[in-house]
Amino acid sequence: MHESSPLRLVIIGGVAAGASAAARARRLSETASITLIERGPDVSFANCGLPYFIGGEIKSRDALAVQTPQTLKAMLALDVRTSTEVTAIDRVAKHVRLRNLASGTTESLPYDRLVLAPGAVPLRPPLPGIDDPRLFTLRSLQDMDRIKAAAVAARRVTVIGAGFIGLEMAEQFVHLGKQVTLVELTAQVLPPLDPPMTLLLEDELRKHHVDLVLGDSVTAFEAGPALACRLASGRAVEADLVVLSIGVRPDTALARAAGLYLGPRGHIRVNGFMQTSDPDIYAAGDAIETTDFVTHEPAAVPLGGPANRQGRLAADHIFRPATTQPYPGALGTAIVRAFAAAAGLTGWSEQRLRAAGRPYRTVTVNDNHHAGYYPGAQPILLKLLWDPATGRILGAQVSGLAGVDKRLDVIATAITGGLTIDDLAQLELAYAPPFGAAKDIVNLAGFTACNTRDGLVTPVDELPADPAVQILDVRPPALVQSHPLPRAGALNIPLGVLRTRLGELDRTRPVVTVCALGKTAYFAARILAQHGFQVSALTGGIRAHFDPRSPAKLPAP
Amino acid sequence: MHESSPLRLVIIGGVAAGASAAARARRLSETASITLIERGPDVSFANCGLPYFIGGEIKSRDALAVQTPQTLKAMLALDVRTSTEVTAIDRVAKHVRLRNLASGTTESLPYDRLVLAPGAVPLRPPLPGIDDPRLFTLRSLQDMDRIKAAAVAARRVTVIGAGFIGLEMAEQFVHLGKQVTLVELTAQVLPPLDPPMTLLLEDELRKHHVDLVLGDSVTAFEAGPALACRLASGRAVEADLVVLSIGVRPDTALARAAGLYLGPRGHIRVNGFMQTSDPDIYAAGDAIETTDFVTHEPAAVPLGGPANRQGRLAADHIFRPATTQPYPGALGTAIVRAFAAAAGLTGWSEQRLRAAGRPYRTVTVNDNHHAGYYPGAQPILLKLLWDPATGRILGAQVSGLAGVDKRLDVIATAITGGLTIDDLAQLELAYAPPFGAAKDIVNLAGFTACNTRDGLVTPVDELPADPAVQILDVRPPALVQSHPLPRAGALNIPLGVLRTRLGELDRTRPVVTVCALGKTAYFAARILAQHGFQVSALTGGIRAHFDPRSPAKLPAP
Repeated sequence: MHESSPLRLVIIGGVAAGASAAARARRLSETASITLIERGPDVSFANCGLPYFIGGEIKSRDALAVQTPQTLKAMLALDVRTSTEVTAIDRVAKHVRLRNLASGTTESLPYDRLVLAPGAVPLRPPLPGIDDPRLFTLRSLQDMDRIKAAAVAARRVTVIGAGFIGLEMAEQFVHLGKQVTLVELTAQVLPPLDPPMTLLLEDELRKHHVDLVLGDSVTAFEAGPALACRLASGRAVEADLVVLSIGVRPDTALARAAGLYLGPRGHIRVNGFMQTSDPDIYAAGDAIETTDFVTHEPAAVPLGGPANRQGRLAADHIFRPATTQPYPGALGTAIVRAFAAAAGLTGWSEQRLRAAGRPYRTVTVNDNHHAGYYPGAQPILLKLLWDPATGRILGAQVSGLAGVDKRLDVIATAITGGLTIDDLAQLELAYAPPFGAAKDIVNLAGFTACNTRDGLVTPVDELPADPAVQILDVRPPALVQSHPLPRAGALNIPLGVLRTRLGELDRTRPVVTVCALGKTAYFAARILAQHGFQVSALTGGIRAHFDPRSPAKLPAP
Repeated sequence: MHESSPLRLVIIGGVAAGASAAARARRLSETASITLIERGPDVSFANCGLPYFIGGEIKSRDALAVQTPQTLKAMLALDVRTSTEVTAIDRVAKHVRLRNLASGTTESLPYDRLVLAPGAVPLRPPLPGIDDPRLFTLRSLQDMDRIKAAAVAARRVTVIGAGFIGLEMAEQFVHLGKQVTLVELTAQVLPPLDPPMTLLLEDELRKHHVDLVLGDSVTAFEAGPALACRLASGRAVEADLVVLSIGVRPDTALARAAGLYLGPRGHIRVNGFMQTSDPDIYAAGDAIETTDFVTHEPAAVPLGGPANRQGRLAADHIFRPATTQPYPGALGTAIVRAFAAAAGLTGWSEQRLRAAGRPYRTVTVNDNHHAGYYPGAQPILLKLLWDPATGRILGAQVSGLAGVDKRLDVIATAITGGLTIDDLAQLELAYAPPFGAAKDIVNLAGFTACNTRDGLVTPVDELPADPAVQILDVRPPALVQSHPLPRAGALNIPLGVLRTRLGELDRTRPVVTVCALGKTAYFAARILAQHGFQVSALTGGIRAHFDPRSPAKLPAP
């Protein structure tokens, strides 16, 4: 068709998915008529950078404009319409109805193919006081400008929601010298992670004087000289500025009105080529429901990376349907930094696996981010989840002061390749002292998982409440004294003398071995198991469960 | 067997592979008698750290001792024999003959299973003057101590061989304030990499005043007040200290004498379980020939990571043969740092693929190591090689100022998982501004490879010599002026105005598009191809081929 008359492509939404679709479309067709329609005044801006401009890490607002309407026109010969809203899609006549938000003029635009990339909008629950002008959400450059302006005079800032954006905003407000309160509904920050994996982030936030209010939620905003956030616990937190970052909902009213199939939470349903229920209409980005990479079930993953690649894929399928590979599904790989710490996940978490009733096994391992003998080695913690039937990796979470992104990326790639815990054990990663270790923490996770599968060790993820179980702390006595277990009654026998002191343990009662990192406890468990004890080991050690900065040895005097 | 009487395991070699085998063996059997025999005085030391102690980055010599004979005894109940040489293996009687190098006493030790981990020894070609006491190789802690002592009084240092250790030593001697000459036989540093991928390393070395002598070799050492290295070119380089780092050979005289099968270059042949031609004798580490992960052909990969895992695997197979997974083969993943730059590779290089006559395709891409709009983004260069028949990744090389190790690890994992260029394009990596980009350079390499496969772009890896070919530089004119192409006669039409200036090109002659990074040249090639031109694009741009610091845009005035 577009060989005879040029194809008319209309793209609604000009940020991540929309701009990617437009750029790819132009590479594939010089003759297509490509119109990019954006409700806001900006196209293709770096929305993941907004918190960093507010906090001043990114100095230039222009740096956030990846493209402007002018550069898109010059480089890609696009017809760019900003501050323009699409009010209706006529799927029979194949045209969209536009309204210029500045002039109010309306217009009809015909299309052969339509790409919907409307994105998502921040959630604003209908709480009392929700319309107070001191309450903000962050999505656009204009939101960013408003928050940055309001922050100048603010002394106290409350951030509601400790997800990715909430954590980034809390950090940035600390950089600005504000007194920051972070309120989170769940009992931890970064709810997509399994609970103990967030200890380091929480410690880092508290270290920087963020008032962390976990397991609590806002019930009302009360206007006064300050804006008071009334919490479910009864507490009230006063602030001069409140940022609400409790999630987003897909912006799909237009798609719904056009009769396109939506998922249960209002996302646009697409196939592997990003086609909606109308094959001439594609959708991509935060507004869609794609599939989960691991289970192939429907999944909505509002992240920048997938949005960009989905937009590109939609354009591919429009212009080269025969050679386009379908979207493989989303892993939900994500990372966040909070001061010196970082944490993230890829694939499935234990919470999700348990809720879905899927079988899994898990281990948690500690190590340094590169060879410990080379200066600057930083602790890193990795939780691995796998399918007990196949050994395939289902997901991982990583937390630490350095190298977190690398391990997430390696495991995301491992999941993509269908690798098993055996493959992970043998993975040949780059090693020189400044960059890695002869046995990287990823290998270590593989070793430990294989040991668990093979029955060499039984990991437990908490200290047993049952007093019949003997808790054996195998750290050096000085370390036990300086950093005691959070539970009394443990026996301390350091690993180096364990073989000679087995008589101090009761062979008729089960033993749980404990150490700082989990490694020595495993070594001890191997000795005990071979001497006939019923033994398990605390996976990840004290550092994973109680104190993210628990030392493995005492500093030299 | 070892249920009835304890298994007697003897391990020859106590560093990476040997120490790993011993540790794993003890976890698997408390009852086995495990003897670890080491010719040198040290066990389990961090040999990859030796250059960094010489240069003073690692302050404490003790940091290099991962284990000592005492800790191995206490923690693993090993019988450790250091300064002890095995002089013969009697495979029929199943015992080894030992000689204590200090006392001269000899002894026979029976074994049920033997693990050979003798490692490798530095090459010392029989050149005139090779025995001069100012000439050193680096392998043991004692070598390290000797070099460190000799370096105190040395003003001029020559390093011969610009492989991984040669580069590390050159950097460390610069840190010590020495005047450093680095001599390399090939025309580049780091010969395992394809030539243009080493430009940044070479630039970085020269920036730090290393006298880089490429394409030259030593023919003789002449003793005088200084030690003169006479080169094939006729040049002589005077030095107070010379480090020879031209490679290693496997230390397999004992294995050869015992009649074990060796490979063509003297490595011990093993199967996937690390068994030699005698199934009761295992071998692991730098002395063995394992298989290449990609081709399954024999390959010797003397690296620390594989050595550690092979030693562990040998112990697994000795104690749990039924559940041991075979070694998957080696990728040869390796990395080196030279000052601010790093470079490395995984899998096959173009040189190796070409020499082996294997089909391949390749692209080279530039990007930032994280989102360009976030402060601190550093350039990174990635060369990808894949199999045109299957799309599977065969190898990659990465060079840059940050994030090099992460991309090598991701692609090593991708090769392990059998991922294709399509998979790489869709890989969902961790993205937040400080850590990555919505489209990571790994995705970009996948996109570009797919574009090449699909005929959207034809990459070339040099500027054509044929004057009939039009070279089109699509950079902004100011950049062309400040950073001209190394070749005269190119036409300059910036991308933004290309569509309006097509008339300046001769439609009857082929065009090669050029830019700083390769991206704009691709965009231009797409425009030209769709307007009927026969066009190709310089893959990786000026930065990959001529100037590793070539800017993509001029700094703001």
